[in-house]
Amino acid sequence: MLNPAERSALQRALEIAAQPGLPYGPNPRVGCVLLDREGTILAEGHHRGAGTPHAEADALNHARNHALNSTDASTAPTLHGATAVVTLEPCTHTGRTGPCAQALLAAGVGRVVVAHRDPNPVAAGGVELLRDAGIDVELDIPADLAAAADALNRGWGHGLRHARPLVTMKLALTLDGRAAAADGSSRWITGEAAREEVHGLRTTCDTILVGTGTARADSPSLTARRPDGSLHPRQPVRAVMGTGAFPPLPTPDGAGEAILLPTRDPSAALEDLFARGLRHVLLEGGPTLAAAFLRAGLVDELIVHLAPTLLGAGRSATGDLGISTLIERLDLELLDSTPLTSPDGRTDLRLTLRPRAA
Amino acid sequence: MLNPAERSALQRALEIAAQPGLPYGPNPRVGCVLLDREGTILAEGHHRGAGTPHAEADALNHARNHALNSTDASTAPTLHGATAVVTLEPCTHTGRTGPCAQALLAAGVGRVVVAHRDPNPVAAGGVELLRDAGIDVELDIPADLAAAADALNRGWGHGLRHARPLVTMKLALTLDGRAAAADGSSRWITGEAAREEVHGLRTTCDTILVGTGTARADSPSLTARRPDGSLHPRQPVRAVMGTGAFPPLPTPDGAGEAILLPTRDPSAALEDLFARGLRHVLLEGGPTLAAAFLRAGLVDELIVHLAPTLLGAGRSATGDLGISTLIERLDLELLDSTPLTSPDGRTDLRLTLRPRAA
Ligand SMILES: NC(=O)c1ccc[n+]([C@@H]2O[C@H](COP(=O)([O-])OP(=O)(O)OC[C@H]3O[C@@H](n4cnc5c(N)ncnc54)[C@H](OP(=O)(O)O)[C@@H]3O)[C@@H](O)[C@H]2O)c1
Ligand SMILES: NC(=O)c1ccc[n+]([C@@H]2O[C@H](COP(=O)([O-])OP(=O)(O)OC[C@H]3O[C@@H](n4cnc5c(N)ncnc54)[C@H](OP(=O)(O)O)[C@@H]3O)[C@@H](O)[C@H]2O)c1
Repeated sequence: MLNPAERSALQRALEIAAQPGLPYGPNPRVGCVLLDREGTILAEGHHRGAGTPHAEADALNHARNHALNSTDASTAPTLHGATAVVTLEPCTHTGRTGPCAQALLAAGVGRVVVAHRDPNPVAAGGVELLRDAGIDVELDIPADLAAAADALNRGWGHGLRHARPLVTMKLALTLDGRAAAADGSSRWITGEAAREEVHGLRTTCDTILVGTGTARADSPSLTARRPDGSLHPRQPVRAVMGTGAFPPLPTPDGAGEAILLPTRDPSAALEDLFARGLRHVLLEGGPTLAAAFLRAGLVDELIVHLAPTLLGAGRSATGDLGISTLIERLDLELLDSTPLTSPDGRTDLRLTLRPRAA
Repeated sequence: MLNPAERSALQRALEIAAQPGLPYGPNPRVGCVLLDREGTILAEGHHRGAGTPHAEADALNHARNHALNSTDASTAPTLHGATAVVTLEPCTHTGRTGPCAQALLAAGVGRVVVAHRDPNPVAAGGVELLRDAGIDVELDIPADLAAAADALNRGWGHGLRHARPLVTMKLALTLDGRAAAADGSSRWITGEAAREEVHGLRTTCDTILVGTGTARADSPSLTARRPDGSLHPRQPVRAVMGTGAFPPLPTPDGAGEAILLPTRDPSAALEDLFARGLRHVLLEGGPTLAAAFLRAGLVDELIVHLAPTLLGAGRSATGDLGISTLIERLDLELLDSTPLTSPDGRTDLRLTLRPRAA
């Protein structure tokens, strides 16, 4: 069980790990807060990406700097008996930086709160190492904070387990399953609230992927924007997949890198993205690409914005899935359904789904 | 405000008005409960259809019969100062039966609880007539009971206002808006819970309507069945619309009358049904008929059972609506969204919608 100071400290550690300046990618985003015996914050730390100190080391460094700068040695903070609150299990391996579990031990920390176990077999074992050394390790974390710690590095965790990026497919559909009207127009099927949510989604992924067809039809900028049109500080990489030509994506100042994936093979595309250190792909269509990923079994979750409107004609949600009779259908599990009401009063539904087979 | 006895009496009056034996159609379904001064039930009555006594007259008759059969005159119930609880405003016109407001007055009733005002201009005015005669008329009804009283005669009220039946369109769709797979198979797109709900819906309408295409493809029996397969006591009329031939509908014992509407004109079909005294049509497809009614603006509400599954091909929810670009879309208002979980664990969504123009 966490005491109130530890609970706040974990909330703060999650906050600093999630700050927009911190990169996604092949390294986890981690936050660490050190507390003294009274529950007062001694120092904070976070991980800034490959090759930089881990969050624990960063926090320990900050604490030591405070101590050095303190003129009165008696008031300088000590780490003996301090509590380290970390969003991810401290690592035990020596990579480009030293192992964090040992660093915490060496600093004399008395208790460690761990919000999420490390799914990386190379790095895991921190909890056991600390416990063997007599440190009190707390793993009983309130469910909401544990979930937030997990969500922080979903793509990274998925990459460790599956050696490919997590793929979230996003579709904006009419009630009759249309992704665009007969003339190709699809802006906007959904209301303001749903569209704003897409921009939020884009900030939680490291890559947006579309097909050349969408790049040609919509000339999308594929940036994460605030309601006022300004760009979020964190921008995903923008990837276009396909073998044909398309006009360059509009690229406002601050937009993410644009890359071309000159293939029609979803596995090859994901391999390429993974090799670039990208871990969470937001697949934004169109229907042809959506079908290709679904057929390949390479969609991990779907977010469908369903607009209560009918078109009666136009582009279908997905291209052909090779299904000719009902029993062959591709079943999804409906995880959540939430209404999204826009300022103009129209309500779309956000459905979160997962392929049953996945 | 109702006292507890009146509240229970109104619940009972709604119950007897909704019993399966009572016909839908050109007359409203009405229930009446008479209470003595202590709140004890003196008699109940309901309306059995055109030409039979109204609910109030029925209840008064029952009360009088009780009195006549009572051996001890001192214990015989008296109606002086009694309260009449009615699901619909007592009528003031003399049709095939006398006006009910006057009958209640003549019987010496002291208070009348009215759950729903009569939308029929010919019959309305009961409340004013009673109040003018010094009777205490209560119209402040708890919202749930008022809604139930309204729902009881939705089709009838709609018919009075619009001189055509209420049309509820029901569709079972996949997430990509398919009403059937490429080979025409559509059984079953949705899970058990949604299918059971359709049978419930069928008992609350007086007509099921499908096109000849559905009659040919599915040979549906269009009956309202219980989970065990047995037929509900109340069965809707079964109507097939179109100009072509189709095999006779399978007709189990107890099924509703089957009628043919040899037209492709939705207005003409509704006119025909209205002339037969039918007031609430459940339009169950297929996509061609759905499109025809939508284009004609003759759909009052939609109930969509949305299955979390993808087909990628097959029959679309509705045929062509004459819409070629997004801005022409047919917007609906989403009134409700409710998950329907089947015993096997699969969850469909029930969406209740209404055309924005309607
Ligand atoms: N409602 C929504 O959520 C949404 C989202 C996006 C787009 N849209 C709409 O969708 C329409 C564009 O649809 P689309 O299907 O043409 O676009 P698309 O899926 O973005 O692109 C299709 C193209 O991608 C290439 N491609 C890449 N991998 C492929 C594979 N495995 N199999 C086949 N082709 C592959 C092919 O072009 P190459 O010849 O270059 O290989 C193909 O023509 C537009 O109307 C747009 O507005 C709607
Ligand atoms: N998922 C669902 O909720 C659902 C519900 C029902 C059916 N279905 C599926 O839908 C498929 C059948 O679809 P469908 O569209 O052929 O069936 P439909 O809409 O039931 O019937 C179409 C036929 O109705 C007649 N019709 C009547 N009024 C018309 C009008 N105004 N305009 C045009 N035609 C009119 C025409 O035949 P005439 O030549 O006779 O005039 C037309 O061919 C089957 O696969 C069935 O399983 C699905």
